[in-house]
Amino acid sequence: MQIQQTLRGHTIFFKKQPKIISSGTIAGPKESAGIVGNYVDKALSDDMFGENTFEKAECKMLSYAIDQAISNAGLNREQIDVLFSGDLLNQIISASFAARDFAIPFLGVYSACSTMSESIMLASAMVDAGYVNTAVAATGSHFASAERQYRYPLEQGTTRPPQSQWTVTGAGACVISGKGEGVKIINATMGKVVDYGVTDVNNMGAAMAPACAHTLIQHFRDTDTQPEDYDLILSGDLGALGSRILKDLCWEKGFDISNNHVDCGEIVYKVIEDEFQGGSGAGCSAVVFNSYVLSKLKGKLFKRVLFAATGALLSTVSSGQGESIPCISHAVQLEV
Amino acid sequence: MQIQQTLRGHTIFFKKQPKIISSGTIAGPKESAGIVGNYVDKALSDDMFGENTFEKAECKMLSYAIDQAISNAGLNREQIDVLFSGDLLNQIISASFAARDFAIPFLGVYSACSTMSESIMLASAMVDAGYVNTAVAATGSHFASAERQYRYPLEQGTTRPPQSQWTVTGAGACVISGKGEGVKIINATMGKVVDYGVTDVNNMGAAMAPACAHTLIQHFRDTDTQPEDYDLILSGDLGALGSRILKDLCWEKGFDISNNHVDCGEIVYKVIEDEFQGGSGAGCSAVVFNSYVLSKLKGKLFKRVLFAATGALLSTVSSGQGESIPCISHAVQLEV
Repeated sequence: MQIQQTLRGHTIFFKKQPKIISSGTIAGPKESAGIVGNYVDKALSDDMFGENTFEKAECKMLSYAIDQAISNAGLNREQIDVLFSGDLLNQIISASFAARDFAIPFLGVYSACSTMSESIMLASAMVDAGYVNTAVAATGSHFASAERQYRYPLEQGTTRPPQSQWTVTGAGACVISGKGEGVKIINATMGKVVDYGVTDVNNMGAAMAPACAHTLIQHFRDTDTQPEDYDLILSGDLGALGSRILKDLCWEKGFDISNNHVDCGEIVYKVIEDEFQGGSGAGCSAVVFNSYVLSKLKGKLFKRVLFAATGALLSTVSSGQGESIPCISHAVQLEV
Repeated sequence: MQIQQTLRGHTIFFKKQPKIISSGTIAGPKESAGIVGNYVDKALSDDMFGENTFEKAECKMLSYAIDQAISNAGLNREQIDVLFSGDLLNQIISASFAARDFAIPFLGVYSACSTMSESIMLASAMVDAGYVNTAVAATGSHFASAERQYRYPLEQGTTRPPQSQWTVTGAGACVISGKGEGVKIINATMGKVVDYGVTDVNNMGAAMAPACAHTLIQHFRDTDTQPEDYDLILSGDLGALGSRILKDLCWEKGFDISNNHVDCGEIVYKVIEDEFQGGSGAGCSAVVFNSYVLSKLKGKLFKRVLFAATGALLSTVSSGQGESIPCISHAVQLEV
């Protein structure tokens, strides 16, 4: 496992292994009823968070998570050198308006629901190379702002198909630093766009699973590891159906992840019923990873985790023009 | 000027000074009639580029620019380790669908019209740190796809106000590498979000000028340089009015940039008439920088250039909800 190269295949090996020294999380009422409820910094009782629009609530959640991560690290805003953030809304307005609240450099990213792992990867690279001392990676989403942007007005009461997922209301952020105690970031596997031709915008799990399988297999090969080397292989928001497809695709290539794979979308809700296949959205893996999973890593219940958030890079325009759904997944390997 | 620190203020100093070893550019008919016409790899006679929608034409232009940059470097796609790209369309579909054409790792960024300098900054950092050997930074825009997304349907024939700008149809890409001959990337100043409360979505120049002024002044202070140390200070797409505001704001802080400042938006069109304040869009600085300016750098007519692309981080939703326009500008310093 000790590889001195900095790049092998699509995987970047960090030289000094930067650490996640703290995190900040917030979740909506529906999300807080589930597994993350006991781990988030704030469980909202009102998903409007005191704002008058869904978009402003989403932005406020993201700001809260960033602020909380910084204060949980015992730092103040002036000690953060750069913020990497993005979200699902057009022109990543949640991230941009949240960044306005913080007078620190901001590098906007877009990778749909894989924004959390792309942000962690870039923040880790900047810290590891010594360009910055301390960076924040953050993202979030809101069920209602995503529904009205990507799908239908909520007031219309459109019936949801059984293959659909439910966008998580929540946000998560983490502080990455070269100094201090925390969860080590060992390496990161950059994803490439994978598109198997799925056009059903209600079936994100099926669309994203091949991209996730590609990144996981690339990671195993680049790092000379096997699925059993990880205590947890955490995918982003494939949901129940997408997770089954992921396991099949990996198995076909000789990698059996069935014993240690968990999907954030599959576990985020207490009962998968109204949410059909489970949770989705940039906030899904952001909340699960930065609250529950980081907590278990800190407690050494997990010692080595592979976190591969997954993103569907479509828009209403691309789908309307008959395009299929290009997907991506970026992975980061963490250890304590 | 020889500073050994890797971070000073908001400016990252590259240790090995990665180089832009090639570029690829394409421009629409209106743009090709101007200064960039003699420098782009392809001057389109039809802004549909053989496609049946504006969005597909935009994506095809971006793919063309990336492909051309790679072949101009004498490389093939497999030799590119990562692509940094983003664009103005919702969910950066041009970049995501272009990335689908290339089977290489893709890291999506969003910084509106400052995407070119953010992409160059991140690509340079990854190359300089040795995480990747060769990276591509790319962006573009299309007048018609931007108009119908951000403003009105073209068929409506809405009158444009005098403070407005014209989104450039074009794309630009460059290959950044640790090896080979080219234009050296010395350092990069990360921008922060600046918002002076402008709410007029037709007056992007006025909204973005304060962010650009902030980044330029931060850069001068971090690098101990003065405006006269640069042969060219190139802002992204402030247009005529925004450029006047920029000069005033810098002058107020003791930095007189009036002798060597040029704005890509101000020079991109032959005659600023229908376009009022000039060009805008992510493609504006992408095309001007990667064609005309890089050519003059290679020819040593410019020896030191400060390139600060500028972005307005609004969306139709944020404006519709009464928000002002948060803006950002990232700068990179180049030398031959």
